[in-house]
Amino acid sequence: MSHNSFGHLFRITTWGESHGPAIGVVVDGCPPLIPLTEADIQPFLDQRKPGGSRFVTQRQEADAAKILSGVFDDGNGPVTTGTPISLLIENTDQRSKDYGEIAHAFRPGHADFTYQAKYGVRDYRGGGRSSARETASRVAAGAVARKVLGDSIQIRAGVVQLGPHRIPDDQIDFSAVYDNALFAASNEVVPEWEAYLDTVRKAGSSIGAIVALEVTGVPAGWGAPLYAKLDSELACGLMTINAVKGVEIGAGFEAAMLSGEENADEMRIGPDGEPVFLSNKAGGILGGISTGQPVTARVAFKPTSSILTHRQTINRDGQEVDLRTKGRHDPCVALRGVPVVEAMAAIVLADAKLRHRAQVG
Amino acid sequence: MSHNSFGHLFRITTWGESHGPAIGVVVDGCPPLIPLTEADIQPFLDQRKPGGSRFVTQRQEADAAKILSGVFDDGNGPVTTGTPISLLIENTDQRSKDYGEIAHAFRPGHADFTYQAKYGVRDYRGGGRSSARETASRVAAGAVARKVLGDSIQIRAGVVQLGPHRIPDDQIDFSAVYDNALFAASNEVVPEWEAYLDTVRKAGSSIGAIVALEVTGVPAGWGAPLYAKLDSELACGLMTINAVKGVEIGAGFEAAMLSGEENADEMRIGPDGEPVFLSNKAGGILGGISTGQPVTARVAFKPTSSILTHRQTINRDGQEVDLRTKGRHDPCVALRGVPVVEAMAAIVLADAKLRHRAQVG
Amino acid sequence: MSHNSFGHLFRITTWGESHGPAIGVVVDGCPPLIPLTEADIQPFLDQRKPGGSRFVTQRQEADAAKILSGVFDDGNGPVTTGTPISLLIENTDQRSKDYGEIAHAFRPGHADFTYQAKYGVRDYRGGGRSSARETASRVAAGAVARKVLGDSIQIRAGVVQLGPHRIPDDQIDFSAVYDNALFAASNEVVPEWEAYLDTVRKAGSSIGAIVALEVTGVPAGWGAPLYAKLDSELACGLMTINAVKGVEIGAGFEAAMLSGEENADEMRIGPDGEPVFLSNKAGGILGGISTGQPVTARVAFKPTSSILTHRQTINRDGQEVDLRTKGRHDPCVALRGVPVVEAMAAIVLADAKLRHRAQVG
Amino acid sequence: MSHNSFGHLFRITTWGESHGPAIGVVVDGCPPLIPLTEADIQPFLDQRKPGGSRFVTQRQEADAAKILSGVFDDGNGPVTTGTPISLLIENTDQRSKDYGEIAHAFRPGHADFTYQAKYGVRDYRGGGRSSARETASRVAAGAVARKVLGDSIQIRAGVVQLGPHRIPDDQIDFSAVYDNALFAASNEVVPEWEAYLDTVRKAGSSIGAIVALEVTGVPAGWGAPLYAKLDSELACGLMTINAVKGVEIGAGFEAAMLSGEENADEMRIGPDGEPVFLSNKAGGILGGISTGQPVTARVAFKPTSSILTHRQTINRDGQEVDLRTKGRHDPCVALRGVPVVEAMAAIVLADAKLRHRAQVG
Repeated sequence: MSHNSFGHLFRITTWGESHGPAIGVVVDGCPPLIPLTEADIQPFLDQRKPGGSRFVTQRQEADAAKILSGVFDDGNGPVTTGTPISLLIENTDQRSKDYGEIAHAFRPGHADFTYQAKYGVRDYRGGGRSSARETASRVAAGAVARKVLGDSIQIRAGVVQLGPHRIPDDQIDFSAVYDNALFAASNEVVPEWEAYLDTVRKAGSSIGAIVALEVTGVPAGWGAPLYAKLDSELACGLMTINAVKGVEIGAGFEAAMLSGEENADEMRIGPDGEPVFLSNKAGGILGGISTGQPVTARVAFKPTSSILTHRQTINRDGQEVDLRTKGRHDPCVALRGVPVVEAMAAIVLADAKLRHRAQVG
Repeated sequence: MSHNSFGHLFRITTWGESHGPAIGVVVDGCPPLIPLTEADIQPFLDQRKPGGSRFVTQRQEADAAKILSGVFDDGNGPVTTGTPISLLIENTDQRSKDYGEIAHAFRPGHADFTYQAKYGVRDYRGGGRSSARETASRVAAGAVARKVLGDSIQIRAGVVQLGPHRIPDDQIDFSAVYDNALFAASNEVVPEWEAYLDTVRKAGSSIGAIVALEVTGVPAGWGAPLYAKLDSELACGLMTINAVKGVEIGAGFEAAMLSGEENADEMRIGPDGEPVFLSNKAGGILGGISTGQPVTARVAFKPTSSILTHRQTINRDGQEVDLRTKGRHDPCVALRGVPVVEAMAAIVLADAKLRHRAQVG
Repeated sequence: MSHNSFGHLFRITTWGESHGPAIGVVVDGCPPLIPLTEADIQPFLDQRKPGGSRFVTQRQEADAAKILSGVFDDGNGPVTTGTPISLLIENTDQRSKDYGEIAHAFRPGHADFTYQAKYGVRDYRGGGRSSARETASRVAAGAVARKVLGDSIQIRAGVVQLGPHRIPDDQIDFSAVYDNALFAASNEVVPEWEAYLDTVRKAGSSIGAIVALEVTGVPAGWGAPLYAKLDSELACGLMTINAVKGVEIGAGFEAAMLSGEENADEMRIGPDGEPVFLSNKAGGILGGISTGQPVTARVAFKPTSSILTHRQTINRDGQEVDLRTKGRHDPCVALRGVPVVEAMAAIVLADAKLRHRAQVG
Repeated sequence: MSHNSFGHLFRITTWGESHGPAIGVVVDGCPPLIPLTEADIQPFLDQRKPGGSRFVTQRQEADAAKILSGVFDDGNGPVTTGTPISLLIENTDQRSKDYGEIAHAFRPGHADFTYQAKYGVRDYRGGGRSSARETASRVAAGAVARKVLGDSIQIRAGVVQLGPHRIPDDQIDFSAVYDNALFAASNEVVPEWEAYLDTVRKAGSSIGAIVALEVTGVPAGWGAPLYAKLDSELACGLMTINAVKGVEIGAGFEAAMLSGEENADEMRIGPDGEPVFLSNKAGGILGGISTGQPVTARVAFKPTSSILTHRQTINRDGQEVDLRTKGRHDPCVALRGVPVVEAMAAIVLADAKLRHRAQVG
C-alpha cells in the first residue's frame, strides 16, 4: 500500500529528493547469510552514474552507497542478517542555483504541474522526488536482489531502439551494452547512434528510446496466476521507473498481429529429457508463471522533458509563460535507464523467488 | 500480497474455476451509501457474455451475478454498507466431456505446463483457474467500481487493431464499440474485419488484437509518484488480464521515437482560467499523477492459444505428442477483453480515488 | 490493507451478514497438493455450531461449508491446487421478525451506534456483519490452516475462567474441552459452572470469560522481529474476534509483577542434545520468534451485550429510549469462541510457516 | 507484509541495529502541507532518551533525528510534501567492548537464541536489531503522526503498575507522567516506587510494569469491523514493542468478570444533543469502531531480561553455560516504554484517520 515501496516479500522502500542531503532505500525481507558488502553494490551504481559521458547528465555525484544496517560480520565476512538493510547515498552535487523560474512555472512534460495539483506543494529543486536521481536507490537495491537470485540467473538489458534507429532483433548483443557510452545492445550501431545523439544534444533537444531486457536462468514455476502474473509484476515494476510509458512481455504488441499458430510456442523433449520450447513468443511466461525459457521484456522511455527550446506553459499563478530548461540534462534519459531496468527486474524476480518458495516450498 | 486480490483500498479478491460450481469476487473497501443492485451489474456482464456472436465462445452461460452481502435496504432502496460485497456467478454450462488428452498433454501457449510445473497439479477442466471465465468476476467488480467513480468519469475501450488491420487514430470512435460484434472502435471497419475474422475462424486459427482505453473526467491529482504511478497501477491491473502481454500509456512505445519537443505536452490557460494541454502524449498522467486530461492506454492481447491445427507439444509423462484443441473457442480473445479492460480501469481508478482522498483529503 | 482480510501469505477474506443468504471466506495462498474435502472442515464447524446446548444461542443452522473452488481430484482424491479456496456457508435460519426497535435504537455494548456513526447505514438484522455468525467463516478457514500446519502441530483452547470462577493453572486440561457444553478446560469445574451459568441465563444476564490457548509442535524460528513479532500477529488475529478485548502471550500481564530472574526462562541441554527451557514464561516466543516451546496465550471475552434487562440508550433520531434485547442469545459468548480462538491461531501459524519458509527456505 | 513496517496508509519502516552507525525510520503516506521541523520531533525523543536518570540505561546518546527528505520550505516554513519522510538518528555511544561471552551464549529471556535459530546469524552487539534502541525510531515517527492527528487529539500514557505496586484507577493522573523519573501516572507513588526500584536496581535485578494509555478527542467512526478493529490495530501496534507481552482495551481482562449489565456502556443524550456514554468499559471502541469516548488500553511489559545474577543457559556450540549480563541496563524497561506506547498509539490513529477518510470521505 505504501506509495514508495515495491515488492511483497523482498521489499524496497525508497526515499529522498534530488537536492536534499541524501537519498536511500531500505531493503526488507532479504534472506540471511548472503555475503554482502558495499563493493557488491558499487559496480552497479557506477554503471548508472551521471557524468560518465557527454550523453548523460553532467551532474557530478560520487554515488557511493553506505550500508547502515542489516549486515554483520561474525568472523567470516559480512553477511545479511535477515533484518532490514538500509542503504544511503549522499547527494554531493546540489549546485546552488536560482530556481526562481522553475519554482513557479510548470515545465511541460514534467511532474511539476501534477505534484502541485495533488499536494499543493513541491520540492522544485532539481525535480525533487521526481528526479531520475531516485533511480540510484533502485540500482543499489537491485544489487542486493541479484545476490538473492544468485549467479545462475543472468539479467541483461540494453538500448535496442534510439528514436528512429532500431537494432534488428537478430543483431541484439547484450554483451556489448556496457562497452559503449550509449548502452546500446550492439557495438555496430554505436558510431551512427553517437552522431545522431550528438545532433540531438547540440540542438538542445532529446529523444526517446526502447530498452530490451533478457533474464536467463529463471526456473519454471515462478510467478502465479492472474493478479500475481509474473508479466504483471514485471510491468508494474518497470512502469514505476521515471519516464517509462510502456512495457511489453515477449512478443508483446507484436503478438497482436500474430496468429495462434505463430504465437503458441511449441514444445519438444530435449536431449536430457527436459522440456524444450521451439520459440519464445511468450517471453518466458505462460499463465503468469515462468516457463524456464528466458524472460524477455521491452520498455519504452519517453524523451527527456528538459530541453533547451522555449515551450509554452503556465505557472502557479495561472499565467501563461514560456519556459526554457537551462543547465545540464540527458539528451536520452533511457540510456541510464538500462541499469535501472536490470535492477527492477532483479527486484521483481527476487520477490518472485521468495513468494514461490513460500507457497510451494 | 494475495495472489488473487487486486487493489489497495478498493480491493477485489476473485476465486473460481471454469468448470467448478461457481466463480465469484469479494469487493472490499467500497464506500457506504452507494445505491447498488444486481441490475447495476448485469449490463456489464451481458457485454462480455459468451455466446453473443459467432466470433466469441459458444459456451452458454446465464452469467448472472448474485449479491450475497454488503448491500442493505433500509427503506430507501439497497445501498452499500461499507462491508464486503460478495458477488457470485454460477457456472451453468460445464459440459460433461472427456478431458483425457488435455488432462495429460500441455496445450502450447496455455498455462497447462506452467501450472503443472509450479503446483504439481492443475484443474484442467476448461482451463480451470486460467480460463477467461475468470474475467466475469472482474467485470462484475468493475460495475461496483464505476458506481464509486460516479457519472462524471466515463470509461470506454474498444478494439483498434485486429491482427494486421488497424483503425487510424483519428478514426477511433468509442461510441461504436457495443454496436458491433467485434467491439471495434469504428463501425466502418466492421464489414472488412468480420470477413477477415470469419476466415480466421473457419481456418480454426486465431489472431491477436489491440484494445484502446480512454477515461475522461479524471481530475488532476490522482495517482502518486514512483511506486504508485498511475501508469504503473494501470499497467499492473491491465496486465493481470488473461492473454495480455503489453500495456502502454499515452504515446507509449511511440514516445520512443519522439523528440522532447514533440512529446512534452504544452500548456495554456483555458477560457475559464483552467489549465489546458495542447496535446496529450502523456496519456493524462505526468509523474505518475493524473493531469486532468483523458487517461489513455493501449493493451496488447495475444491470439487465442486454442486452435484447431495440430501442434507439437509434450505431456506430463515427458513424451512428445501432437495436440489439436477441439471444441468451442474464441478466434480473438481480445474481443471479449474489451469490457474487461474497462472493468480493470474502473477498479484501478476507484482505488486511486480512495487513496488520493486518504492522503490529501 | 483490506478491512476484511487477515494474513499475509496464507490469507483469508471473509464476507457476509447474519441474515443475508450466506456467509463465506476465500482462502488464498494455500500450498498445493494438500488433501482437502468438506469432511475435513465440518467437524470444526460442528464444534462452534449454535444450538448445541442451553448455554449457546438457540439459532438452528446446518453450518455446512461448501468448497466452491481451489480443490481438484485428479484421480487420487481431492487436493488443493494452489488457487483460492472459496468456502460458502448458507444462512438457513434467518427467522422472519420485526426489527423495528433494534432498527432504530442502538443496543448498548453492541456495534449499532458505531456502525451508524461510521457508515451512515447498518444492516441491523441479527447484528448484520457484527454478528458472531461471521466466526463460522474463520472456523472453516482454520480447518484449512490446520491442514497446512500438519499433524505435528496441535492447537488447543478452552475456557479457563468464567466470570469469577477460575481454573487453577495446574488443573488446566485441554483434553476436557470438547467433552463438556461449557468448553471448560477441566471436567471438574463443569457442575459448578453449569449451575452458575444457568443462574446467569435465567436472569437474562450474561458473563465474560477467559479462553486459554496452547499450541505444541511449533518449531523454533517462526515469526520475526518487531513488526512481525509472533506475539503481535497472534494478538492481532485474536483481537479481531468479536467481543475480544484483551490478549496476552505467555505470562502476559502477570509478567508485570515478575522479576527478571523469575521471568527469563533458563536453558539447558536436553538428553538428545536439544535446547531445553526450564520454564515458559515467554509463552514460546522470544524476540517475536518461536522458541520451540508451546506457544501460549490467553484471550479475554467481554460478556454478551444482548441481555434481557432494560438498558438506557438512544436511537437514530437522537432520542433517549430504554431497550431490552429479546430473543435467543448466548449467556457467555466466549464458549463458542473457543473453536474460533483455535482457528485464528491456526491461521496465524500457517501464515508464519509460509513467511518463514519464504525468507529462510 | 514487510517485517519491519507498520501501518497501512500512514506507514513506517524502521531499520538499524543498536551498535551500527545509525538507526532510522521512513514515514510514508503522510499528508502534505503539515508544518514539520526537527524541533517538532526532538521533545519526544528527549522523553525516552537514555541517561535521564538512574532508573534508565546509562548509555549516552544525543538522539537527534535528522530529517533527510519529505519536507520542503517554499517560503512559509518547512512543510511535509507528501513524499516519504526519512528520519535518521546516529548511534554515538557504541562503546567498544568485548562481546565474547554474549557472542556465543544465549542470554535467557533475550532474542539471542531465537534469532540464531531463525537466521543462523545475529548481530550480538548490544542486542543488535532486538535492542530497545529501535524504539527511538518509533518515537520519532510518532511525532510526525501526532502532527497528522492535530491538537484536538491528546495521547497520554504512564506507568500504572510497577511490579506489585499499583496505582488505583481513580488516582491515575497522566499529567504527572513526565514530571517524575519513573513515568508514573501519579506523583504520590513516586517516593515509594523510587525506593522500591532502587532496591531492584542495586540487586542487579529487574521488574515488569504496566503502562496505561488514554487518547482523548478521537471522533466516533474511526476503525472498522472485524479484521480492522481498532482494538486489533492497537493491540497489534503495541504488541510490536520490545518486551510487551499483553495488551487490553478498555476493561480488558477485567471484562471477563463482568456481567452484561455491568459491561455494556449505557447511552444518554448530552446537553448539546450529542450522544453521551455513562461508562467506558469498551475503552472507546465498539465493534472495532471508535465511539467518541476516550480510547483506553493497558500494556504489560515484562521485566528487563538483562540482570546481574548468574543464569543457566546454553551457547551456540550446544554447551551448558552460566551467564551474567554485565554493564548498563534498565531495571524496568517499561519506564522508557511510556513515550513508545504513546508513539505507537499516534501511528495507529493517524493510520485510522486516513483509512476512515479514504472509505467514508
